[in-house]
Amino acid sequence: MTTEKKHGEFSLIETLVARRPKPENLFRACRVAAGDDAALLASLSRPVITTDTQREGVHFRRDWQTPFEIGAKAVAVTLSDLAASFAKPVALFVNLGIPAGLSDSVAEGIYDGLGAALEIYGCDLGGGNTSRSSELSLDLFAVGEGQGEMPLRSEAKAGELLCVTGPLGMARGGLRCLETGETRFPELLAAFKNPRPRFDAAEVLQQAGVRCAMDISDGLAGDALHMAKASGVTLELALTPEMAHGELKGWCDACGEDLRSFMASGGEEYELLFTCSADTLAAIKAVIPTVMCVGRVSAHSGLYLLGLPREASSFEHR
Amino acid sequence: MTTEKKHGEFSLIETLVARRPKPENLFRACRVAAGDDAALLASLSRPVITTDTQREGVHFRRDWQTPFEIGAKAVAVTLSDLAASFAKPVALFVNLGIPAGLSDSVAEGIYDGLGAALEIYGCDLGGGNTSRSSELSLDLFAVGEGQGEMPLRSEAKAGELLCVTGPLGMARGGLRCLETGETRFPELLAAFKNPRPRFDAAEVLQQAGVRCAMDISDGLAGDALHMAKASGVTLELALTPEMAHGELKGWCDACGEDLRSFMASGGEEYELLFTCSADTLAAIKAVIPTVMCVGRVSAHSGLYLLGLPREASSFEHR
Repeated sequence: MTTEKKHGEFSLIETLVARRPKPENLFRACRVAAGDDAALLASLSRPVITTDTQREGVHFRRDWQTPFEIGAKAVAVTLSDLAASFAKPVALFVNLGIPAGLSDSVAEGIYDGLGAALEIYGCDLGGGNTSRSSELSLDLFAVGEGQGEMPLRSEAKAGELLCVTGPLGMARGGLRCLETGETRFPELLAAFKNPRPRFDAAEVLQQAGVRCAMDISDGLAGDALHMAKASGVTLELALTPEMAHGELKGWCDACGEDLRSFMASGGEEYELLFTCSADTLAAIKAVIPTVMCVGRVSAHSGLYLLGLPREASSFEHR
Repeated sequence: MTTEKKHGEFSLIETLVARRPKPENLFRACRVAAGDDAALLASLSRPVITTDTQREGVHFRRDWQTPFEIGAKAVAVTLSDLAASFAKPVALFVNLGIPAGLSDSVAEGIYDGLGAALEIYGCDLGGGNTSRSSELSLDLFAVGEGQGEMPLRSEAKAGELLCVTGPLGMARGGLRCLETGETRFPELLAAFKNPRPRFDAAEVLQQAGVRCAMDISDGLAGDALHMAKASGVTLELALTPEMAHGELKGWCDACGEDLRSFMASGGEEYELLFTCSADTLAAIKAVIPTVMCVGRVSAHSGLYLLGLPREASSFEHR
């Protein structure tokens, strides 16, 4: 068994805590932060909790992403579940698994990325620990404060429209560009490397009274299936090539990929999937022009999903 | 990169959630549990958060511990930080790293152990996820509700006594028994395999007004050093052979180990280390007979620790 000093677990976390600026609004969350056995937070009326894992070789590759990008994306991916729950970020906890021989500069780069992303989203670092691991891994645990009613994937109602907050398939396109060394599609690459949780859209959706929402982490087809099952409805997809982002069209043309299939089977999108009435969609679209209707909700007809492009399958990390 | 379906991540968690009984007091914590993007908890006036990692080869070995024991210990170890913070457990989140080829029965055994321990400590399972990993690992995040003032390791005051809630060095003795195949000391083995967070003692300490407390995860010497540095005091240890548990004495005699050094440099004890006045100690000891005074606090004299047995060193996982 490898040797590990528990003392050492604190040093990296403490480095980050010490390095980060502490304006009033970041101090707010943590009354007692890293260093003691646990962190004490300010009171939470609707605590919303989520967790995510980012593991080298499964979720990221160091020859594709810088340590900074890996750290920043881990935060964004984890906080996206808070956005999808209409919650505001409060504190993030990070367990880092460090393989033998990892250079300090890689660990520091990851922490810099974590810190920069925490800054962007106004989230405090609550603590965490590090341990020896055979592969580089980040386990993140985010605490948020719910705002009003939490949206549920089980709340889709027949007669509503199925909508997304932005273009589909972008991150998967970026992943394929990395796999093939393609560099002509910077927005696809950015969608994979630097996803943004849609806190901005969540606020609009909540104010518009949306009750059914989730983030698209498994691709439209996969997540629509989750939603349809949880709600006991049929979701009929109606994807058209016009809905696609220009770079995705360009990439699919260049590679001979089926555009609609690609849009339906993307992954790691972190756009929000939601249902609402036509009137509500119009009101939302006035504030977020990228919002699109991608289908409709009907009473359960025996199948959960209709209108699925033939080659669509749920995204798999690979 | 390995292939992984995010859908599959939910199945194990859902199995456990479905299997666990849901009496009123366990339902309390989670308004929305695993399945949606995040868990919504009931309001928390003093949220206390802690995280821990248990990794095969570093923190446990499958030839020493059953899957059930591994799961149960992971919960106990994580919740111990809540006990040390005078907080009551509310919800636990578990990220499981699963190596290729792990049998279902091992995964189920771990979840059974997690579930049984959650039951014992009245803690809900909030969610989590599973991912492919090169080694078996558990990342646990616990949410608790603080009770009154949170004790701090920085609150040791000159003139107080340094105390522990139970015998020292037991778990390290158990680890050594496992390493050497020694079976004559069941209480040492139990201390390593089946540690118990001291929620019972925490309640007594809190009612007695103790302000400085932490759990002994790194061994007395290591954790006393943390406490002395945080408090800016000198801690003078005064360990005697009479304080040792009978089995530890027996084991040290049999192996030629120095008993006091062993007591000072144990690890994974999960007893509480705290400071208080002589009168308070007497009051606490009346309720918890295993409480012992192991030293005293004095003004910082240039050294943080005095009275350390010569061979004592902080415990390292190995």
